[in-house]
Amino acid sequence: MNNILSRLQDQLEARKSATSASSYTASLYAQGMDAILKKVGEECTELIIAAKNADPQQLIHETADLWFHTLVMLAQTGLRVEDVLQELAKREGVSGLDEKRQRPTKIGKLLE
Amino acid sequence: MNNILSRLQDQLEARKSATSASSYTASLYAQGMDAILKKVGEECTELIIAAKNADPQQLIHETADLWFHTLVMLAQTGLRVEDVLQELAKREGVSGLDEKRQRPTKIGKLLE
Amino acid sequence: MNNILSRLQDQLEARKSATSASSYTASLYAQGMDAILKKVGEECTELIIAAKNADPQQLIHETADLWFHTLVMLAQTGLRVEDVLQELAKREGVSGLDEKRQRPTKIGKLLE
Amino acid sequence: MNNILSRLQDQLEARKSATSASSYTASLYAQGMDAILKKVGEECTELIIAAKNADPQQLIHETADLWFHTLVMLAQTGLRVEDVLQELAKREGVSGLDEKRQRPTKIGKLLE
Repeated sequence: MNNILSRLQDQLEARKSATSASSYTASLYAQGMDAILKKVGEECTELIIAAKNADPQQLIHETADLWFHTLVMLAQTGLRVEDVLQELAKREGVSGLDEKRQRPTKIGKLLE
Repeated sequence: MNNILSRLQDQLEARKSATSASSYTASLYAQGMDAILKKVGEECTELIIAAKNADPQQLIHETADLWFHTLVMLAQTGLRVEDVLQELAKREGVSGLDEKRQRPTKIGKLLE
Repeated sequence: MNNILSRLQDQLEARKSATSASSYTASLYAQGMDAILKKVGEECTELIIAAKNADPQQLIHETADLWFHTLVMLAQTGLRVEDVLQELAKREGVSGLDEKRQRPTKIGKLLE
Repeated sequence: MNNILSRLQDQLEARKSATSASSYTASLYAQGMDAILKKVGEECTELIIAAKNADPQQLIHETADLWFHTLVMLAQTGLRVEDVLQELAKREGVSGLDEKRQRPTKIGKLLE
């Protein structure tokens, strides 16, 4: 189940050679980063609204939408989902408060 | 590598019995859903700024932060990362434009 | 010039009796608060992108869009722009750092 | 009442020569545009949460916070609140659906 992210990433890479007319993702690539980031912001707003509505199905759907568009953003940038998972892995076994002590100068970060 | 999300989820569950003083995640749970959603919105804003700054390291970090806080939100709600991955799996092999045709009445969704 | 906000508010009130087909604002009212808030989130994302693009015309346009949709939100809620201006007036002559001292228990607020 | 925005703008200009230690706004200027935009995004998230909580006082407060930080952003950019009001004035008497017809090529804009 977990490797769905890798498979999705492979698909997103493959869509780079698709036409905008045949693929939503290809049309996003063609519109460029601002259009992708606009979708990321929209999906985040919808996720927050879904959470406040306490609607589990809507919440799962919006979380998937948000993750999907961050994957498109990573693909557009040439980054990989493994980069994000590796960053998350660093946090395993590290309490947020501990991590905060390790990054005292980072402003506005995870553990403020 | 991919099962980092499952391991992280296990940790987030375990933090439900931790004290706020010892764990950043536990302090978020204690503050409640609004505080978690506020962090989700903050991290999304920071991700957009990082993307516009074209800073790959900052972008990976902010994407991890955003995903992390959506995992905390899922844990708080009693949902599981598998629910989101399953939703993403449904999209495999389905072009966004195809999916749009299948969900004609859904407003503000993935493929508008 | 400044009373444009009051005139706009009067118009937004008048649109409450318009049909969705003839008025964008009326169609937002009819869709309800979630649709209005979704637009607020979208416009905020676009404002951030415009600011990072350092495009003054785009920035003015997106700021106007964001303010416009917050006015629609206020109208939908039965609140008035005067309520917001009065709140802003309280801050006149009060440095943010001073205000922070006056609101020690407010989390995530203006002056954190 | 309405000219509170102009007075606030004058204050925000005056803060450009204040020290970060004495003024919240001056500390935002010193941190730079990314810090200001981060606050804009945070306040927008808080506004959405307040609206979903149907808490009028919180909603007025968060709307004021959001407007305040957009004013700081304008000041940092060298733009003026009059620019935004003038843009809003253009919309007076113009239905959103009409405006849409006038801007057929603008993507993701007010009236999509």
